[in-house]
Amino acid sequence: MKPIEECTVGIVGLGLMGGAFAMALRERCCLAQNRLFACDTDGGTLAAAKQAGLIGRGWQGDEAVSEMLGACDLVFLCLNPSTLIRFLEKWEPSFKSGALLTDIAGIKGSVVRTAEKFRKDVDFIPGHPMAGAEKGGFANAGLCKFRGKNYILTTLRRNKPGNLDFLKNLIRRMGFGSISEVSAAEHDRKIAFTSQLCHIIAAALIDCEADTAITRFGGGSFEDLTRIAMLNAPMWAGLFIENRENLLARIEQFEGSLDTLKSLIHSADAAALEKRLDLVRERRTAMSG
Amino acid sequence: MKPIEECTVGIVGLGLMGGAFAMALRERCCLAQNRLFACDTDGGTLAAAKQAGLIGRGWQGDEAVSEMLGACDLVFLCLNPSTLIRFLEKWEPSFKSGALLTDIAGIKGSVVRTAEKFRKDVDFIPGHPMAGAEKGGFANAGLCKFRGKNYILTTLRRNKPGNLDFLKNLIRRMGFGSISEVSAAEHDRKIAFTSQLCHIIAAALIDCEADTAITRFGGGSFEDLTRIAMLNAPMWAGLFIENRENLLARIEQFEGSLDTLKSLIHSADAAALEKRLDLVRERRTAMSG
Repeated sequence: MKPIEECTVGIVGLGLMGGAFAMALRERCCLAQNRLFACDTDGGTLAAAKQAGLIGRGWQGDEAVSEMLGACDLVFLCLNPSTLIRFLEKWEPSFKSGALLTDIAGIKGSVVRTAEKFRKDVDFIPGHPMAGAEKGGFANAGLCKFRGKNYILTTLRRNKPGNLDFLKNLIRRMGFGSISEVSAAEHDRKIAFTSQLCHIIAAALIDCEADTAITRFGGGSFEDLTRIAMLNAPMWAGLFIENRENLLARIEQFEGSLDTLKSLIHSADAAALEKRLDLVRERRTAMSG
Repeated sequence: MKPIEECTVGIVGLGLMGGAFAMALRERCCLAQNRLFACDTDGGTLAAAKQAGLIGRGWQGDEAVSEMLGACDLVFLCLNPSTLIRFLEKWEPSFKSGALLTDIAGIKGSVVRTAEKFRKDVDFIPGHPMAGAEKGGFANAGLCKFRGKNYILTTLRRNKPGNLDFLKNLIRRMGFGSISEVSAAEHDRKIAFTSQLCHIIAAALIDCEADTAITRFGGGSFEDLTRIAMLNAPMWAGLFIENRENLLARIEQFEGSLDTLKSLIHSADAAALEKRLDLVRERRTAMSG
């Protein structure tokens, strides 16, 4: 792959994440405006992004999308998982031969299955940037910070080592911290815990209390635990259901731990409860590195 | 009560919260160093606080504590709930006649029962500042920020209106935001949800995952949900057990909501799940004010 400055780059879906990638590519990777394209179903967003000097050209409508994909050396697919699979099925013939593709889907099983059988002359490296914001859409892209965030790549055996190095270098230049390479199965198991279970817990916490004035009695913990309850319902419902086998197993593990703590509280066993909480503090402290 | 600048103020327990109160009184309420006293079982902490120009004098040992309490117009009792009750029983005769007392205990039932039957010539207004930090002790007092935080007072009928106004004014000057006045029973019910349940959930999340490298797969949610799992085990075990009736009820409500979400995921009912998550987002957004 040639240097990023010489690539023509396409963003498919100029929402929160697509917008954040566009900004990072322009600001941190020295990509010229006329080398960055974006397609989206919302013409207003494309016009705003061009007006703001972010992208060189916005592409809307079937013919335009096909033309854009044919021109790009590198494509960031910034779509929800279900939309992504449909997009790939529809546009597979349109990508430029030799292009590097990557995506941002929060669940990787189905994406990797699609990538494995994708056109041989296109290199698709599935990825998951662990960044986001409470509010979605291009208008909030500036709130989505990459600095120091984790990035997961579910690299395929068929991916070219040179392209993988290129992408990892680009990810670091965009500001991300740790990059992990794991199988789709491991990604989906891990994410069920670190991301999906956390969102389910936040949602359940809000679900069980109707009094919105309760926040006058909050000390920060409640706010921190429930900020992610302001979620994009269609996207998260899709993620939860697609990964339900892993997620249900994680919910049950969590319920087991909750039950243990509940029993110790119920029996007022201060010594055993303290000991368990001590172990929890030690483990969480170790996680902080 | 005379103006705060003319009061002699005592801090009982110069730990995280006691230290934070001492700093706020000195920096934001114009209290002179020689008007601020503190007693603690740790002589090193008292010496450090005096050396740093924070307190005028540190008092250690039974005779000294009695002398300090007899000299103070205003006393902040910054002790764990169980220690607090024992302290009040032991030192009730030593407080200065006409003094105003307040505390910081995270559970108010037992404190209010003690305050109700306390010496008639001393005005004890029980309180709960909703502030804290992951690490405890005087050395971390600077990490405990008051600005914009909630403060709860479980005012008694016998409290003098003038003293209540004085204390509320002082709380605002120290930087706190909303001040709520509720009964001890209401406080303990509300806190079981906004604080204790959140800490139990954070602890259970850490309890059910032994792999400390899991944070490489975190996107911020996991870190936000579990920061409070680095808890002071003896203090929190005590709070959980003392408030167990309210807390167990809240855990069960939460489990009910978790079960509902789990069922919708299990049955892959995307429409119903989306609808529930939409309501959650709306409610949480309303909570953000």
